[in-house]
Amino acid sequence: MATSWDIAKAAGVSQTTVSRVLNGDPRVASHTRRRVADVIERLGYTPNGVARGLVTRRTQLVGVVVSDVRNPFYPELLEAIEHQLTEHGLKMILSNAGERPEDSYMRVLEEHRVDGIVFTAATMDSEAVRTLARRRFPIVVANRSVDGVECDSVTGDNEGGARAAAQHLLDLGHRRIGVLAGHPEASTSRDRLAGFASGLQEAGAELDSDLVRVGWYSYEFAYREAVELLTIDSPPTAIFCLNDLMAFAALNAASSLGRDVPGELSIVGFDDIRMASWERFQLTTVRQPLAEMARTSADLVAQRIESSHAPYQQLVFPSLLVRRRTTAAPPRKPGG
Amino acid sequence: MATSWDIAKAAGVSQTTVSRVLNGDPRVASHTRRRVADVIERLGYTPNGVARGLVTRRTQLVGVVVSDVRNPFYPELLEAIEHQLTEHGLKMILSNAGERPEDSYMRVLEEHRVDGIVFTAATMDSEAVRTLARRRFPIVVANRSVDGVECDSVTGDNEGGARAAAQHLLDLGHRRIGVLAGHPEASTSRDRLAGFASGLQEAGAELDSDLVRVGWYSYEFAYREAVELLTIDSPPTAIFCLNDLMAFAALNAASSLGRDVPGELSIVGFDDIRMASWERFQLTTVRQPLAEMARTSADLVAQRIESSHAPYQQLVFPSLLVRRRTTAAPPRKPGG
Repeated sequence: MATSWDIAKAAGVSQTTVSRVLNGDPRVASHTRRRVADVIERLGYTPNGVARGLVTRRTQLVGVVVSDVRNPFYPELLEAIEHQLTEHGLKMILSNAGERPEDSYMRVLEEHRVDGIVFTAATMDSEAVRTLARRRFPIVVANRSVDGVECDSVTGDNEGGARAAAQHLLDLGHRRIGVLAGHPEASTSRDRLAGFASGLQEAGAELDSDLVRVGWYSYEFAYREAVELLTIDSPPTAIFCLNDLMAFAALNAASSLGRDVPGELSIVGFDDIRMASWERFQLTTVRQPLAEMARTSADLVAQRIESSHAPYQQLVFPSLLVRRRTTAAPPRKPGG
Repeated sequence: MATSWDIAKAAGVSQTTVSRVLNGDPRVASHTRRRVADVIERLGYTPNGVARGLVTRRTQLVGVVVSDVRNPFYPELLEAIEHQLTEHGLKMILSNAGERPEDSYMRVLEEHRVDGIVFTAATMDSEAVRTLARRRFPIVVANRSVDGVECDSVTGDNEGGARAAAQHLLDLGHRRIGVLAGHPEASTSRDRLAGFASGLQEAGAELDSDLVRVGWYSYEFAYREAVELLTIDSPPTAIFCLNDLMAFAALNAASSLGRDVPGELSIVGFDDIRMASWERFQLTTVRQPLAEMARTSADLVAQRIESSHAPYQQLVFPSLLVRRRTTAAPPRKPGG
């Protein structure tokens, strides 16, 4: 396989010119571009990411950090992010950060010299995000935001969506409502909880803290807590789950206990991932425009890689309650 | 941040020695190793993947190619593969190949100089796999195999598992059985179809080709075909789906048509991903030991990167029918 040195020699240009051609640099005259392209065609040169990185100081890699690839929310985001990054000539390197300390995956991304990072699961106490933002490294926080950090961000209207969920459950007549919340340091947990509480308050109702379980955005956590909530004396007649995966867990927990949804229990999710509309779920949920949020995150990181001087954009996408078949009026009280 | 040159200077050694220390090369004396490590500790050096790649000619990156990250089968594999690669000091770069021509993602992986590739969704006509195997590039084909290629492979017992599914449905009394198959060029489609057909033949039954739909391992394909199969005259009383995602689609399609599962229709899947045991599905399916297959794939690619001379291993993991609640005896015939 020819190297860029071979190409430069055969085309009678410098290696820098070859690199410029490979990177679409407009400073190369079109006849030179054609000559280099012809030689590349003839000699079968494959651009080498490592060597090219030394010239452009870029790797064309974007790190995308998710917290749990098994939560179907993330594959939906990833697919759209990857697709859009490809449009910008960028390639995704996935970090499935999980509950590992953030410096472990940050080191990996640094070692591989990614050109930018999209964080989809940052926590509010994320030192990594703060440090990178301070260094003006190209980052985008998507889905979850981090307070007081200057960087591009893409989120849904978490408060508004949760307020709509509260109003929907109140309208149906629910007063005793449980909440399954995710990571306490995730802005989504905080904002959705706040929106839900304020929606209740506006109607003169109140969030019962005994019925609020804060933990992880995981199936296992939600399943365990749903079983617990449904087996206390005077269980809630509705559960608001802060993501769809947790709502599926609550649906399954209700099935395991023989509770009819929505006859005996109403369940509302958040996100409206594709599975939410499956007949076996027909989940009432708060829709975020996930594909559009993902595409926008990819666009923003690509722009930031190109130019570090553009003003930061904080974009908030509207959310929308989607009524399906997991919500109804609460059961009449025994003897009522 | 210090460079390896700074480290070399401060420790009074050559840059080659610094690289050897970073890569655990046994040729470095232990007191030298300690001196270099002390300097690294003091100066806060972060090994740079690009620069290190020039010394070791390795990037520590492994490309993992899947066909559709939205199929929950792949996230389960990816999580286990990534976890195990990390144990080997390797990092995953994900290619969500989809239906794109394989040379597009191959070029990307080549550009980033991955040290090895795990193919989880190779098709039998894959030129990329053949070419890389011929060049003795470190590859592992996992889940789907490619005939006549010399490389490490990890698959489940697709024929045996499908034969067990056929026997189970025959034992229950089914004779009119539909099949939803995935990509016609995937070995899993071919082997599961062959195993199912041979299971029927052993019992004197036969696969009715009018009831076999071959297409894609996708929810959308399976849903459409299931609706079609269930609305013909004399529909099948059971459907064998060649993966769990397709089985969920068939379950949802049955729900949309008001068909009771398993009362009016039995459904069997393949894989036993975690969702298969959810109460809302309780899917009878063929279990493959996915986590173990994934871990083994990561181990094999790591070994192959270390040594290209070891004999190739073709590992086939046993599969097992798991009976849950989507299979039962067929309904009695009208008027029977």
